[in-house]
Amino acid sequence: MRLALLGCGTVGTAVVRLLHEQADDLAARVGAPLELAGIAVRRLGRDRGPLPVDPAIFTTDALGLIKRDDVDVVVEVVGGIEPARSWLVEALRAGKSVVTANKALLAEDGGALHDAAAEGGADLYYEASVAGAIPLLRPLRDSLHGDTINQVTGIVNGTTNFILSAMDASGAGFAEALEEATELGYAEADPTADVEGFDAAAKAAILASLAFHTRVSAADVHREGITEVTAADVASAKAMGCTIKLLCIASRGPDAHGVDSVSVRVHPAMIPVSHPLASVGDAFNAVFVEASAAGQLMFYGRGAGGAPTASAVLGDIVAVARNRLAGVRAASESAYAMLPIRPMGEAVTRYHISLDVADRAGVLATVAGVFARHDVSISTVRQVPAAGGAPTADPGGRGVDAVLVIVTHAATDAALAATVEELRGLDIVRSIASVLRVEGGL
Amino acid sequence: MRLALLGCGTVGTAVVRLLHEQADDLAARVGAPLELAGIAVRRLGRDRGPLPVDPAIFTTDALGLIKRDDVDVVVEVVGGIEPARSWLVEALRAGKSVVTANKALLAEDGGALHDAAAEGGADLYYEASVAGAIPLLRPLRDSLHGDTINQVTGIVNGTTNFILSAMDASGAGFAEALEEATELGYAEADPTADVEGFDAAAKAAILASLAFHTRVSAADVHREGITEVTAADVASAKAMGCTIKLLCIASRGPDAHGVDSVSVRVHPAMIPVSHPLASVGDAFNAVFVEASAAGQLMFYGRGAGGAPTASAVLGDIVAVARNRLAGVRAASESAYAMLPIRPMGEAVTRYHISLDVADRAGVLATVAGVFARHDVSISTVRQVPAAGGAPTADPGGRGVDAVLVIVTHAATDAALAATVEELRGLDIVRSIASVLRVEGGL
Repeated sequence: MRLALLGCGTVGTAVVRLLHEQADDLAARVGAPLELAGIAVRRLGRDRGPLPVDPAIFTTDALGLIKRDDVDVVVEVVGGIEPARSWLVEALRAGKSVVTANKALLAEDGGALHDAAAEGGADLYYEASVAGAIPLLRPLRDSLHGDTINQVTGIVNGTTNFILSAMDASGAGFAEALEEATELGYAEADPTADVEGFDAAAKAAILASLAFHTRVSAADVHREGITEVTAADVASAKAMGCTIKLLCIASRGPDAHGVDSVSVRVHPAMIPVSHPLASVGDAFNAVFVEASAAGQLMFYGRGAGGAPTASAVLGDIVAVARNRLAGVRAASESAYAMLPIRPMGEAVTRYHISLDVADRAGVLATVAGVFARHDVSISTVRQVPAAGGAPTADPGGRGVDAVLVIVTHAATDAALAATVEELRGLDIVRSIASVLRVEGGL
Repeated sequence: MRLALLGCGTVGTAVVRLLHEQADDLAARVGAPLELAGIAVRRLGRDRGPLPVDPAIFTTDALGLIKRDDVDVVVEVVGGIEPARSWLVEALRAGKSVVTANKALLAEDGGALHDAAAEGGADLYYEASVAGAIPLLRPLRDSLHGDTINQVTGIVNGTTNFILSAMDASGAGFAEALEEATELGYAEADPTADVEGFDAAAKAAILASLAFHTRVSAADVHREGITEVTAADVASAKAMGCTIKLLCIASRGPDAHGVDSVSVRVHPAMIPVSHPLASVGDAFNAVFVEASAAGQLMFYGRGAGGAPTASAVLGDIVAVARNRLAGVRAASESAYAMLPIRPMGEAVTRYHISLDVADRAGVLATVAGVFARHDVSISTVRQVPAAGGAPTADPGGRGVDAVLVIVTHAATDAALAATVEELRGLDIVRSIASVLRVEGGL
């Protein structure tokens, strides 16, 4: 069974090493030895450390390698949309099995890959694309196939989880925590894909597609990053017995008109410290699944890094190689449900809002009136003295400051956003200190 | 695709209901409708509540049902060794796919089933046999197939976890907590299989077989139940910042002669409250997997109950039905490694020992000498006044009592057991208050 490896960075070199170290075991599990036919890279000269392969198998001609007759399986760990898409479509159409870790491509245009796989009668596996080493896609795709999945809630980006954990532990602001993450190697030089939520949104699209048997792409995912999360937000969360996590949330349910539909979103949210996801620290990932019959399930492990990601890639390689040897193909994409995607405004969520208000009679009544006007029901409201403990003298003569902390019941995101907008315009509201969505009960 | 269901108790009726409720989705996922050809039961007249099936499909002739030409898949939720084994061997040899939740049979004689499956070219799936709804066997069998699993540590029995959680929360003794569990329906009228660890040992054998590519049967598993766990043990654990769990531990590593081998055991153990398994409460299950490349993974969910178990059964039914429709067979048993099983005496573990000793000079030196004689290294030792706070007057004139709490470093279980045995015979040791193994770091 001969493999073409596209890309030889952190994950690629780990795959090469594991293929060598575990050669005997892998051969026993597959039923035939796994051999590297070639490794396609951008630059031949780059230092990749000592690798247990003949240097002659490196090439810059990826397409030529893919097309070689002696290549059975194509393993892609390059990332990005192009040229990866063209390469994989070419391989799949030619009937070669593909193992990929490319979440961006799967989220952007997974349909093109699935269609090519169906056309060529080839296998397409991508366990490594979401949550690194955690076996997650196979359980969603296979184990829970007899059940109805209602929601998937995950911490799927290690960089942002490291930053938020650091902010929670030290009270630091976002910029400071990002700097620490960069120094320690948890954040890349350009952290945009992580901190703006693009990486998590791609993974959310992949998870939602599998969970709901519906093609969901990155464009369908409502995305907010963590750059706006402040030390004040973290302090507010702590005061509520909560912590802030960047969550990807894919849920299924009736929309306002009762139509079964899917909502997929990525944004920071407060969750109670007692929630299983709250204790997922540093660069770990975890995904919480709620299914009708199975109830609540959680999967936890390392979401990134060379060896953990390579473990997932190798697992997929064994599976497709076994299928190939048996002359069979795994079940293809299941997208029969074709559920509509609900816009973010129709997503049902809860808000935590912290307001600096003038401390005078009638403030609470006025604020409560705004919520009522938008049909948003208030769960709890707490009035606390302004920061510093002592009331602040108010130069404008409008009374002393106080802080109102309000947690709502569930409502549509549109109604909640409109409520915040109207609060912002009120004379008695000095400023809105913090607005955060609340998940996981409170 | 026509199914024969063997057994119609809690899990069986849940399977029947889910097959009906989700008929359209299941048909779309499989590619053909799933129909119940027949349901074999022991007694026809039993009240099973309203079920969405024609009563005429019930039969007491299980073997006749299995042999019918129009049956493609046999689903067994009867349990026990016989007649289940004969039925399933018959079905598999005849080329019919089997989905079973029968952990006792798999652990006792899984080999007979795997051999029959190979002979008949049929699929044998059993996700529901361990940890109910948690997708666990498929990840072990497939996702981690490119990795080396070093240890699997699990809480796989809900009844004992409920009892130990209750003892930890209330300080109750075993008998009292068992009574509460029975009243609440968490323990059966005859709780032997649960509280003596038989159920967990069967699951440990199944997990070890998959993790280590080696046939492991229940007879290979060292088994201790929780009936000897006392309120004093629970208090000792608490004083160490630990809690007591019934763990199943399957590990792989070199034995005393450097031979790669497998150790599988089920026993109560202290784990630190900070360990991810410590917070698994009530009737939940969780399994912690440590693999060379993937690192640490955890799977968490409901381990028992009709609907969760049925979710796992249905997932398997979809998989085997899809395979059948495609005319293919899943990868068969992987037992190529055939690693030897290490006896319990050679298992490497740590002990927590609490001794009532005479409080006089030289006691610690004498006790430490016993450990040294058995080559057991002490990690920590703590000397505390006897219970009650005040020293007790000693009628024998041997001085006042004190308690020595000792935690060892890792050693073989044989050396640790011999150490405890010798301590028991010492004149200065009044009694051994508590001996518990320690897992998960401390």
